Amino acid sequence: MATAARALGGYGYVSPATREQVLAAAVRLGYQPNDVARSMRAKTTRTIGFVGADIVNPFFANAMRGVSDVARQHGFDVFLTNSDERLDLEQQAVRALLVKQVDGIILAPTGVGDAPHLRSVVESGTPLVFIDRALADVPADSICIDNVAAAETAVGHLLALGHRRIALVAESPVTGDDARCPVTDDDEWAARSVPDGVSERPDDRVIVPSAARAHGYLRAHRAAGVPVDSRLARRVPRYSQEAARDEVRRMLALPDPPTALFASDNIMGLGTVVALREAGLTMPDDISLVTFDDLDWTAITTPPITVIRQPVYDMGAEAARRLLARVNGDTSPPARVELPVRLLVRGSTARPGPRSS
Amino acid sequence: MATAARALGGYGYVSPATREQVLAAAVRLGYQPNDVARSMRAKTTRTIGFVGADIVNPFFANAMRGVSDVARQHGFDVFLTNSDERLDLEQQAVRALLVKQVDGIILAPTGVGDAPHLRSVVESGTPLVFIDRALADVPADSICIDNVAAAETAVGHLLALGHRRIALVAESPVTGDDARCPVTDDDEWAARSVPDGVSERPDDRVIVPSAARAHGYLRAHRAAGVPVDSRLARRVPRYSQEAARDEVRRMLALPDPPTALFASDNIMGLGTVVALREAGLTMPDDISLVTFDDLDWTAITTPPITVIRQPVYDMGAEAARRLLARVNGDTSPPARVELPVRLLVRGSTARPGPRSS
Repeated sequence: MATAARALGGYGYVSPATREQVLAAAVRLGYQPNDVARSMRAKTTRTIGFVGADIVNPFFANAMRGVSDVARQHGFDVFLTNSDERLDLEQQAVRALLVKQVDGIILAPTGVGDAPHLRSVVESGTPLVFIDRALADVPADSICIDNVAAAETAVGHLLALGHRRIALVAESPVTGDDARCPVTDDDEWAARSVPDGVSERPDDRVIVPSAARAHGYLRAHRAAGVPVDSRLARRVPRYSQEAARDEVRRMLALPDPPTALFASDNIMGLGTVVALREAGLTMPDDISLVTFDDLDWTAITTPPITVIRQPVYDMGAEAARRLLARVNGDTSPPARVELPVRLLVRGSTARPGPRSS
Repeated sequence: MATAARALGGYGYVSPATREQVLAAAVRLGYQPNDVARSMRAKTTRTIGFVGADIVNPFFANAMRGVSDVARQHGFDVFLTNSDERLDLEQQAVRALLVKQVDGIILAPTGVGDAPHLRSVVESGTPLVFIDRALADVPADSICIDNVAAAETAVGHLLALGHRRIALVAESPVTGDDARCPVTDDDEWAARSVPDGVSERPDDRVIVPSAARAHGYLRAHRAAGVPVDSRLARRVPRYSQEAARDEVRRMLALPDPPTALFASDNIMGLGTVVALREAGLTMPDDISLVTFDDLDWTAITTPPITVIRQPVYDMGAEAARRLLARVNGDTSPPARVELPVRLLVRGSTARPGPRSS
């Protein structure tokens, strides 16, 4: 076994005859000696790792498709692992990928603030590219969207329709160091006026997407001169469809309920739709809704739902292209790439109806 | 680099002082020498591979969650790769996982018939467990459901409600050797009476899920003494939501359209719902629908959709348990495990309405 490992791995002494035997056996078992030989020459394994935060979220499945397609075009295999939004599992996943000697890693950081395990990756020379979120303290490329602007567009659409009581459905742990995706925005943090929930000003440069989207919600209100009722912008306490449903249910029971809602991602959006159904409310007559992510289900509800479309596949593909450029020796300074989003206006948004105004 | 590899990998000569230095550096970089040492002792890498057929299909994402949870409980990392339902990519994924020396592989076979690359895996001593589908010629455990019985239950529900014109929406390439998941069923292949589409009798023991579900559709009709109109049971020519939509659209345009539909999985189901919406049909007044897979979206359509619920998470968890038992030396004969499904009756199914009868 040690001999076969030396022959296939290309280290230590193996007699030419033995090496021939091992390679023949490898062929019989389906290995391709050319792959092995090429990766020896190039000092790469022609494999990359992708650490997604939650594989059940379609965002990561669609991004993985983009990563895989580009990687394959360049002869690389991709291994996906899953951090379940837990820092310890992210550390373990990164360690496991390094042990497997992948040539680079694409990662949606679940941790915030200090990330020595990710700085180590960069310092060890293994290329690292962030997707969806980034960590300002780790010098690596990142592929994101402008979450603040995207949310501002979504909420601005509702404000322009005439809505003045717009609920935010977001799990946005906005604190100074609990923040990830760079935002360049010099505005005052509009949330100062919100006493409960999304109340702290985040670090301008690093912020989780949900917090950035909450920021955009507040900025849109500020730009329109519309005050935010703090009872409509409380944090959803857990990241789950059920918690979103409960929060929407609470807001619908207010004496002056919202006439529109903005859900910060597809999980929050699903919970919101369930709450509206249970309350017997009809979109857009009774209430309007905008959510994030153009998933299949948003087009088959009654009515179809107005969404912010992220170019998820393209984000994965671009992350793979950046990573492979680094693997091939690109040493330019780390760049932040922001891909454009689109507001798709469908049937779930309209002027406040007679029943809601 | 070669020295570090020897020290961490545990082969060849490394002086004790050098080995100490390498391990110290590994700790600094976030490696855990205990993991390395343990895997050396146990001759395992404490990693397993999962080859899913299509990562964008929520089936595989949910199964991956089950696989990961069980693997983690036992200290194993999981690497997911994706075959995109292509045999060449499956072969490549398996090869890449073997090069990475995973301790075992869970795989949803996309190829059919002869699978020398998978027989090689088994012969080389690397444990292999099939999920969702199996190959009769490869002696490995498989975790499936009884697809024939599940479809028979779904279609039986529609027949019991009084429907006599039930459409099948399935991409079911039913041919003698184009078949995967074992079915133990001694019935005659009811499709003999169907001239176009699902017309051939599959091998009793190996069959793709969609073909098995088409079989169940036909068996339910046979059991009820209801003839099948071949125009309602043609094969959807491509595996895509759009192709399913087009096929349903064609059937709705018939002089005697169906009063109910059975969609063989969640992709076919999505396309079916889109076609019904576009035709302006209301469920269940105009038409009834049963589909496969209890995905979130099936509960938020208007009305919610009657589905066959597969225990997808449990299938992944059970696959991981079987695989780890094999890794730990279980040499009992390969077993086929069939997990139970449930029919969840929701608002999309009812007696044929006045507008459809």
